[in-house]
Amino acid sequence: MLGTGLFAITGVLAVSRRGLDVFGAVALGLVTAVGGGTVRDLLIGAPVFWFADVNYVWAALAGALAAFWIGHVFRGTLRLLLYLDALGAALFAVAAANKVLLLGLPAPIAVIMGVLTGIGGGLVRDLLAGRPTLLVSREIYATPILIGCVVFVVLLPVTPGTTWASTAGITAIFGVRALALYFHLEMPGWLTQRGGPGGSEK
Amino acid sequence: MLGTGLFAITGVLAVSRRGLDVFGAVALGLVTAVGGGTVRDLLIGAPVFWFADVNYVWAALAGALAAFWIGHVFRGTLRLLLYLDALGAALFAVAAANKVLLLGLPAPIAVIMGVLTGIGGGLVRDLLAGRPTLLVSREIYATPILIGCVVFVVLLPVTPGTTWASTAGITAIFGVRALALYFHLEMPGWLTQRGGPGGSEK
Amino acid sequence: MLGTGLFAITGVLAVSRRGLDVFGAVALGLVTAVGGGTVRDLLIGAPVFWFADVNYVWAALAGALAAFWIGHVFRGTLRLLLYLDALGAALFAVAAANKVLLLGLPAPIAVIMGVLTGIGGGLVRDLLAGRPTLLVSREIYATPILIGCVVFVVLLPVTPGTTWASTAGITAIFGVRALALYFHLEMPGWLTQRGGPGGSEK
Repeated sequence: MLGTGLFAITGVLAVSRRGLDVFGAVALGLVTAVGGGTVRDLLIGAPVFWFADVNYVWAALAGALAAFWIGHVFRGTLRLLLYLDALGAALFAVAAANKVLLLGLPAPIAVIMGVLTGIGGGLVRDLLAGRPTLLVSREIYATPILIGCVVFVVLLPVTPGTTWASTAGITAIFGVRALALYFHLEMPGWLTQRGGPGGSEK
Repeated sequence: MLGTGLFAITGVLAVSRRGLDVFGAVALGLVTAVGGGTVRDLLIGAPVFWFADVNYVWAALAGALAAFWIGHVFRGTLRLLLYLDALGAALFAVAAANKVLLLGLPAPIAVIMGVLTGIGGGLVRDLLAGRPTLLVSREIYATPILIGCVVFVVLLPVTPGTTWASTAGITAIFGVRALALYFHLEMPGWLTQRGGPGGSEK
Repeated sequence: MLGTGLFAITGVLAVSRRGLDVFGAVALGLVTAVGGGTVRDLLIGAPVFWFADVNYVWAALAGALAAFWIGHVFRGTLRLLLYLDALGAALFAVAAANKVLLLGLPAPIAVIMGVLTGIGGGLVRDLLAGRPTLLVSREIYATPILIGCVVFVVLLPVTPGTTWASTAGITAIFGVRALALYFHLEMPGWLTQRGGPGGSEK
């Protein structure tokens, strides 16, 4: 729930310089916070998680309003928030992968749903705010989540209980993301389509 | 159902000057008309409302085709249509909030679903048409719906039957929106993020 | 399943010159390949089709990776791929319409779901990649699918078995699309909204 509030804060901060009014800010904050998990629940046919516990909504609302009104307070700690956001995404993604596996769905589906939960909220927010989504940026955000979810589903059958696999998955996500944040890494060139000059046309 | 056709008309008129072909116009009209209610039904796990009664589809189709071919007729009455659109949004939003409450879901969820039903179709249309969504504009469209849905869920437990609360909620939505349309109001500055000079970058 | 892989290839090729990294390419390829069918399954309340058979995911993944790394190989055969893509869309759309009719839903819903399955994946890909969607272009892509789905649902009650109606529907979709590709047809002017000079503003 703390993670939900955090996601709302970083979600609003990400878009907050665009002449946003308070309704738009709160809506985008809510979407960032609960969007990924909502799409996951729809796909796996589970009841939407924030219907069962409205506190998720309050946490996201509080985060969004805080970011809207006292955003300048957070801005000084933006780098800290990015690390906390990475930790939140790690926890959410691995929990989502685990939830999918418990439904008896196969491991590749669990990985896809874990990644979707981690990045889905941000994707929908960027669409609604008219920003380029992270799929077309070179920021390293989704790849650590993919790696960590793979680590989790691979380790789970060979470790006793879920604790070891969860910890390894979460550590992998947070570790790779933290390295990328600290060293300002981008996706390496050989993993990126090189557009020739004028290549962006059509 | 009249509201559905109306939504389709205003939906097509909103995007109609963009070199749209007839398929695109009809698709965007349909999305505007039934999109919000469809997302609501998916989230609350109800069957999609226009599957049970195809007349919603015909109403939306008729509205979209009318707006496409004889759009100039409507354009003279555009302001009238905006008021009718506000009335339609009010009816849809309060009906949606009521439907959610009848499922036994808590009041904050009902408010969120009411707002989503009122604005969801327009949001998806703007995404598909490549326009900025209303979340990043200062137009007063979503806020009256939010206010009216709150009025409805607050009054419902303290009034006999749903008629009083519904009427109050619908009146609140239509009234605030009509005031905003009549006086060309925008969201006040203190509720809007002020971008500094060059602040729109990043 | 071959069609799924093909959709992923054409999906990645369509967006591949935009500085895409490998994660983005694979994500957009997957979305193009399974997006339309996923939205259809959500709307009709069926289990998502690629949960039951993970091979769809592998096919899409293989197609997306192939298009990312050896895209230049496909680029020489791009026109061939467009015809194969049209065939895939035809098969998917008619199969979707049939699936919806078998659930006892009315024919207009079947047509809408058929079209949605044929174009939905491409729509979501364009949104996520920040490209204009086909709804606001004059390319003839969705109209053949609409025609073919109508042909299918109209013929089905008057022919023995589904083979005749399916074949007619698929032929209609592929035929019209192939003609449009071969002769570089666009939607005719009388079916397109003419924007006056400066008409694209507001």
